[in-house]
Amino acid sequence: MSTKIKLGLFGFGCVGQGLYNVLNQTEGIKAEIVKICIKNPNKKRSLSADYFTLEKDEILFNEDINVVVEMIDDAEAAFQIVKTALQNGKAVVSANKKMIADHFDELYQLQKQYNAPLLYEASACASIPIIRNLEEYYDNDLLGAVEGIFNGSTNYILTKIFKDNIDFDTALKQAQEIGFAETDPTLDVEAYDPKYKLCIILAHTFGLFVKPEEVFNYGIQNLSTFDIQYANEKGYKIKLIAFCRKVDNKIVAGVLPRFIKPDNKLYNIENEYNGILVESAFTESQFFAGKGAGSNPTGSAVLSDISALTYSYKYEYKKHNRGAKVELTDDFSIDLYVRYSTANPIDTKLFTNIKESYANHESAYIVGSINFAALRQSDLIKRKDINLIVAADTKFEKLQNSIQSLEEETVAL
Amino acid sequence: MSTKIKLGLFGFGCVGQGLYNVLNQTEGIKAEIVKICIKNPNKKRSLSADYFTLEKDEILFNEDINVVVEMIDDAEAAFQIVKTALQNGKAVVSANKKMIADHFDELYQLQKQYNAPLLYEASACASIPIIRNLEEYYDNDLLGAVEGIFNGSTNYILTKIFKDNIDFDTALKQAQEIGFAETDPTLDVEAYDPKYKLCIILAHTFGLFVKPEEVFNYGIQNLSTFDIQYANEKGYKIKLIAFCRKVDNKIVAGVLPRFIKPDNKLYNIENEYNGILVESAFTESQFFAGKGAGSNPTGSAVLSDISALTYSYKYEYKKHNRGAKVELTDDFSIDLYVRYSTANPIDTKLFTNIKESYANHESAYIVGSINFAALRQSDLIKRKDINLIVAADTKFEKLQNSIQSLEEETVAL
Repeated sequence: MSTKIKLGLFGFGCVGQGLYNVLNQTEGIKAEIVKICIKNPNKKRSLSADYFTLEKDEILFNEDINVVVEMIDDAEAAFQIVKTALQNGKAVVSANKKMIADHFDELYQLQKQYNAPLLYEASACASIPIIRNLEEYYDNDLLGAVEGIFNGSTNYILTKIFKDNIDFDTALKQAQEIGFAETDPTLDVEAYDPKYKLCIILAHTFGLFVKPEEVFNYGIQNLSTFDIQYANEKGYKIKLIAFCRKVDNKIVAGVLPRFIKPDNKLYNIENEYNGILVESAFTESQFFAGKGAGSNPTGSAVLSDISALTYSYKYEYKKHNRGAKVELTDDFSIDLYVRYSTANPIDTKLFTNIKESYANHESAYIVGSINFAALRQSDLIKRKDINLIVAADTKFEKLQNSIQSLEEETVAL
Repeated sequence: MSTKIKLGLFGFGCVGQGLYNVLNQTEGIKAEIVKICIKNPNKKRSLSADYFTLEKDEILFNEDINVVVEMIDDAEAAFQIVKTALQNGKAVVSANKKMIADHFDELYQLQKQYNAPLLYEASACASIPIIRNLEEYYDNDLLGAVEGIFNGSTNYILTKIFKDNIDFDTALKQAQEIGFAETDPTLDVEAYDPKYKLCIILAHTFGLFVKPEEVFNYGIQNLSTFDIQYANEKGYKIKLIAFCRKVDNKIVAGVLPRFIKPDNKLYNIENEYNGILVESAFTESQFFAGKGAGSNPTGSAVLSDISALTYSYKYEYKKHNRGAKVELTDDFSIDLYVRYSTANPIDTKLFTNIKESYANHESAYIVGSINFAALRQSDLIKRKDINLIVAADTKFEKLQNSIQSLEEETVAL
């Protein structure tokens, strides 16, 4: 690749305009926007009309353009664009976590086949340089776990709940009003967005390519004032935590809300910030935090990828290429707070070890150990009157055989 | 450089042995130790005697060796080794912050002249990948500030003081007993060690090469129980903070203790951990934390540099090479808590703005704004009965002309 970067942009929303602004304000990178493909020709634009086209081929088959930056919402349309660009030998930069997670293996193959790089630092936790750090810095390390707050919208909502002492619905509405949550907040609130990011992180942490469907996600949609009160009484906050961790040479992974104690570095990660804990054998515990959303942090990460292309940087996928035979497992034990309506009891046999139980005339909860595979097959994850929150001190251990349940009468009123 | 790394080591202490262990346990990197130069032939070693030599030339002029890893204490001897290695076209990895800070410009020139890379990720905050991140990821960003806890020993001491409610001398003794502070703790306690790291960070943040003598350092050696009580009453901790920041297109930099509030991400960075805040125009606030000392975290950072050499990584010094004309300035205002003995008053005219003053029959303090240049010339920094701590909310502003002092009688008893 020549060091002179000639860009073709798909999409010119917040991130695209942020990118344009950054390019104009920094001297450090010699890159020029050649063409911008947009969908809506009637929107008022801040740039000369010459920049814009409605025809994607004007970028994809433009020999003057060597880097395609894909910034559109539609994951399938984005994939077609990225695929064609790579097939034409163009380098690609994308922030589209769903597209990348859905097509990880194909995108890996396309990069190899056409010897064209695809960079996507902005796809996971925006401004935090986690992918390149995992890829580069931890390559020779024995990584044990990566976990953290991967979603800015839900973290904003949870921050509001605990700071302003308001309920979930009010906090969600406030987040929507200032643009930190979508009109349809399902992807964020039900933890799909952090799951896509986790899939990307899994590939760069353990060399593991998994489909998003394989990874369990449980969001904050069932969070009740009872749950919030429980957390407040214990001095906890609740954060939506994506995790992946090596246990007995297999990988456990998922996204669930978790109680967080004040001494956890994630406790103070508030509003739209993301935070990531990395555990490895030699560096031990590392922590990264930064804005996980917003046009400038995202634009900056996109620009950083563009900059890396000037010196022919590409992901090596070393952990994957080394052919390490790791796989996902659900055969582990997790400590869970399960809150339900007293009128509608849950099957306590699901727990291998009940540590606490409580009930009043409306709500009840059990805190206990549960097999992750059993959890995924149970109705606990479907019932709207139930909420699940991972215990603050949970370990992710291979399941033990001993079953120590409290007597059932202690959980009934 | 061939991808096969053949290593010559200088020194085989904790870090060297850690490196040997890591190399043995990880499959990710193909590197082989050819020779180890040691000073003391009588020490019992865990490796075969064939590895060891007392002659540095057996490494420096050994054509089988392409990477020299320098891990000795003596900064001047280390510089001679690194210089000769670079002159012989060998890549060099070092963790020696004093050597690198003292000879930064020469080392930069040597790398250019002999086209041989010198990497030193382990020299600043051990396991935190800050240098490569500043060098690579923030290159195209408009960096505003880098500040944080750069010294593990003093952070361990300060943690003990605030957690166990003990005084400075007791905490220092405990740190020495478990090996977190040297028998002569001056370099750490008087903030020379974090200053060396700050000099390295300055080069990769702002492209500024400065000599350590130019940068002000003030440690925690005068910390009294009165100061600790003041912090406790306000709900603050005290941390030793290295900082560099762009103010009006000049750079302010230094190392001083600072009051830290609970909402600051550095508040929870305890024991031997380091933490670094990075501010930039587009990513906004970023945070990194990890172990700042110890043989494994340091060995891991050294190994990461060795790994980077397999794909010919070198620091580009882009910010410096761009020829940006930035320079250090002391012409800024800093808010400072100055504690002194009531019997021996200080010159209140040093303050451009006094915000608080207090005195009892033994101790007194003033919190106020002071010109940094005036501070450096004053006797405040020399008197043993005085302690200086930067205010929690200090700004680093270009000095204003207005002088608003409280009447002198309010500070006298």
